[in-house]
Amino acid sequence: MKTRTEFLRELEDIFGSRLLVEDIPKSYWSDETKIEAPPSAVVRPKDASEVEELVKLAVEFQVPVVARGSGTGLSGGAVPVPGCVVVDFTAMNRVLEVRPEDHQVLVEPGVIYDELNAQLAEHGLFLPPNPASGDQCTIGGMVAENASGPRSYKYGPTRDWVIGLEVITPALGRIWVGSRTRKHVSTYGLTSLFVGSEGTLGLFTKVLFKLAPAPPARLGVILPFSDIRDAGRAVYALFKAGLDISALELVDRLTMEAVNKFYKVGFPEEDAVVMLEVECWSKDEDRRFSEMELKLAELEATISALGISCGEPSVFFNADEMWSKRALAAEALEKVHGCMLMGDVIVPPSRLPELVERIRDLAERYGLSIAIFGHAGDGHLHPTILVAKEDLFRPDVREAEREIVKLAVQLGGALSGEHGIGMTRIGLLELEVSQQVVRLCQELKAVLDPYGIMNPGKKVPIKGARPTP
Amino acid sequence: MKTRTEFLRELEDIFGSRLLVEDIPKSYWSDETKIEAPPSAVVRPKDASEVEELVKLAVEFQVPVVARGSGTGLSGGAVPVPGCVVVDFTAMNRVLEVRPEDHQVLVEPGVIYDELNAQLAEHGLFLPPNPASGDQCTIGGMVAENASGPRSYKYGPTRDWVIGLEVITPALGRIWVGSRTRKHVSTYGLTSLFVGSEGTLGLFTKVLFKLAPAPPARLGVILPFSDIRDAGRAVYALFKAGLDISALELVDRLTMEAVNKFYKVGFPEEDAVVMLEVECWSKDEDRRFSEMELKLAELEATISALGISCGEPSVFFNADEMWSKRALAAEALEKVHGCMLMGDVIVPPSRLPELVERIRDLAERYGLSIAIFGHAGDGHLHPTILVAKEDLFRPDVREAEREIVKLAVQLGGALSGEHGIGMTRIGLLELEVSQQVVRLCQELKAVLDPYGIMNPGKKVPIKGARPTP
Repeated sequence: MKTRTEFLRELEDIFGSRLLVEDIPKSYWSDETKIEAPPSAVVRPKDASEVEELVKLAVEFQVPVVARGSGTGLSGGAVPVPGCVVVDFTAMNRVLEVRPEDHQVLVEPGVIYDELNAQLAEHGLFLPPNPASGDQCTIGGMVAENASGPRSYKYGPTRDWVIGLEVITPALGRIWVGSRTRKHVSTYGLTSLFVGSEGTLGLFTKVLFKLAPAPPARLGVILPFSDIRDAGRAVYALFKAGLDISALELVDRLTMEAVNKFYKVGFPEEDAVVMLEVECWSKDEDRRFSEMELKLAELEATISALGISCGEPSVFFNADEMWSKRALAAEALEKVHGCMLMGDVIVPPSRLPELVERIRDLAERYGLSIAIFGHAGDGHLHPTILVAKEDLFRPDVREAEREIVKLAVQLGGALSGEHGIGMTRIGLLELEVSQQVVRLCQELKAVLDPYGIMNPGKKVPIKGARPTP
Repeated sequence: MKTRTEFLRELEDIFGSRLLVEDIPKSYWSDETKIEAPPSAVVRPKDASEVEELVKLAVEFQVPVVARGSGTGLSGGAVPVPGCVVVDFTAMNRVLEVRPEDHQVLVEPGVIYDELNAQLAEHGLFLPPNPASGDQCTIGGMVAENASGPRSYKYGPTRDWVIGLEVITPALGRIWVGSRTRKHVSTYGLTSLFVGSEGTLGLFTKVLFKLAPAPPARLGVILPFSDIRDAGRAVYALFKAGLDISALELVDRLTMEAVNKFYKVGFPEEDAVVMLEVECWSKDEDRRFSEMELKLAELEATISALGISCGEPSVFFNADEMWSKRALAAEALEKVHGCMLMGDVIVPPSRLPELVERIRDLAERYGLSIAIFGHAGDGHLHPTILVAKEDLFRPDVREAEREIVKLAVQLGGALSGEHGIGMTRIGLLELEVSQQVVRLCQELKAVLDPYGIMNPGKKVPIKGARPTP
């Protein structure tokens, strides 16, 4: 039996001062869930070879491994498990190859989303799934969680954009899956298996994305509603109308008040707003102006045909100005009490109006402040219970969280649309996913991680373990 | 040891007259590859329960199972393996639930693609990946192969549209994976694992798709070129320009001549054409007209800026009229000699011009007629060697096929973009895919099919077996 001391000595040989064992900063204990647990050690690899050596050692010493980017996760994916090594990927943050000629980019996992997009913008390209935490979150985290964002309404989640991955796995060491091509059928859908695996199958060391051409302009439109129920109905009606729009969001009064209070950005003080984005593709300026006029006229006609009473729309000729307000939602809500419990439920789009209505009812019944915002066009909301840190595990708070998930599942939906299962939703999994499918996931995991050392107990329940609700 | 007779007796109990053992029609011996092998038996299930019973029996008696839709496959996926039962899914052809309210549809695997789309059109919806064989191919085959088509240029392959699957697997029996939601992260990407698995992991009995809103109009444009090399460069330049177009194809002279000869549809007699599609989204007719004008002006400006000499474009105000010519390509080429050997190589888009050029050179070097057409905007071509059936396995023909694949791989590409590996490309796999990744696929297969009875030897080499080149 090898000892922890030996393991740490070997780690030190590889990582030197990039190994932390004593006085590990509190930032490594948690992520945005604020659940805290101490890691046994932290390493900061600088390249794939170091990650490879680390995984070999972890296998040899049977030590759990937890990957971490910026710690912006909302399901505890990066929260340490007992005795684990945390792998901090933020030093592996090189954009390895911008390939504008193929609309592709190869990056290390520690690159920050917004910084990548800023580089890509110079080439008229972008990576569509745009999480609200884009100014902080890493690519590795996005791939691990299969992140999405407002533009996933048109462009789908991260999974649809990853075409190649270098992964270090316990079973097979370093492998490359996928291809430099826009379509690929030579193997099973391996990149799709790794995307969204939440650090449980292997560690990503390189990510190859295909990219979308950026439209020359994006219009933003905010529609105000004096009743959130009307906003919910309007979102659904706009989805149903099948417009060519790239994002369709809903934000409620509680969220807008918090954003206005802490950031003074002037969201309308209404019960709710619907935010949408329209892309304009003409490169020629005159034609683009005509295109904008046409698209706004078409949108106006659609909205007035909905028969839902709506205030005066605000139009932003640069949609980013609109999204900068929306991106502050989570941060602002967290500031209200210094903490929050953010849900991530998703339902078939037609059930969105009912979901909105019943979350409002539930908030009233429990006497809780529950903010509602999210990617509503996808049937996807983040009902956020506003509580202080000490109340995070209060029984009524957790019961309300569980009720919201049950409600989504009852409406034909799922417990998470983008934040993942991690540790916080593992006890909710049985509300949605069958035992057979859990077993399948366990067996797929065992192929790549036969020793069960990769982020154990996250995403997939440990075999035989009964998750506590 | 149970006997074949017992097995057939039990099959007969389930399938009655829908079991074929004697005088199995030749149509069950092959697919579009024209490779022929006799099945041991054929069954025609009418529902999922029958498929479930069949798989149980196949496990018990250790009999290989080969799924089959319309037999339009181009890699031998549906060609019988020794001693197998062929499962003919064409009787399971019900559209179970059109859910326009959620832009979703639930279907059985035997539904024909074009028939499904005709039903969906009534609701202003469509399933984007549109294979050229859409008038015959089944949904089950499309899912098994991860099919794509011209519109995959904008909308991606079938994998991006499957959100739920009912699958009968040897290991777990009947399972449901996925969700009725547009995004899903509660499990690993299981639907993505099954899509493109070519019948090797399980049999699909229900498929749930998300759908796209159909644009109110689609413009088609054909650009003629007197030299295919210019056409290749133009395709790439149009890709690179990042236009908002939904399809971008290339068709060469040999293909057009064959289509004109056998179907008299009047393709231009040029060395090559580029075909592209532009969507128009205005519902209002006047606005739509303005939108069309704008988009054509923008396109014209882009084309003239390319600096590549091009003939007079033809514009189709209904793109379907244009695509109906393109859809005849494979059938027409097959008629030239009653047979053909169709490739399916894909390269990073920037290498498309070189791929086109080098295939032409190769055709000259080998003295073979090689037609070139395909989803060129994706870097994807079907170089098709025009030969009679008796020459299909002539050494120079097979060498030329292999050379084209090698060329694609050299250019950073892959051996198949949409037709799959099946049996015809299994010997080519090693040119592209690493041994480690092959092993991973074998082990993933073993999780779902531990007995190795699902379409053995297709897609993934059998463990230990050395594929013959």
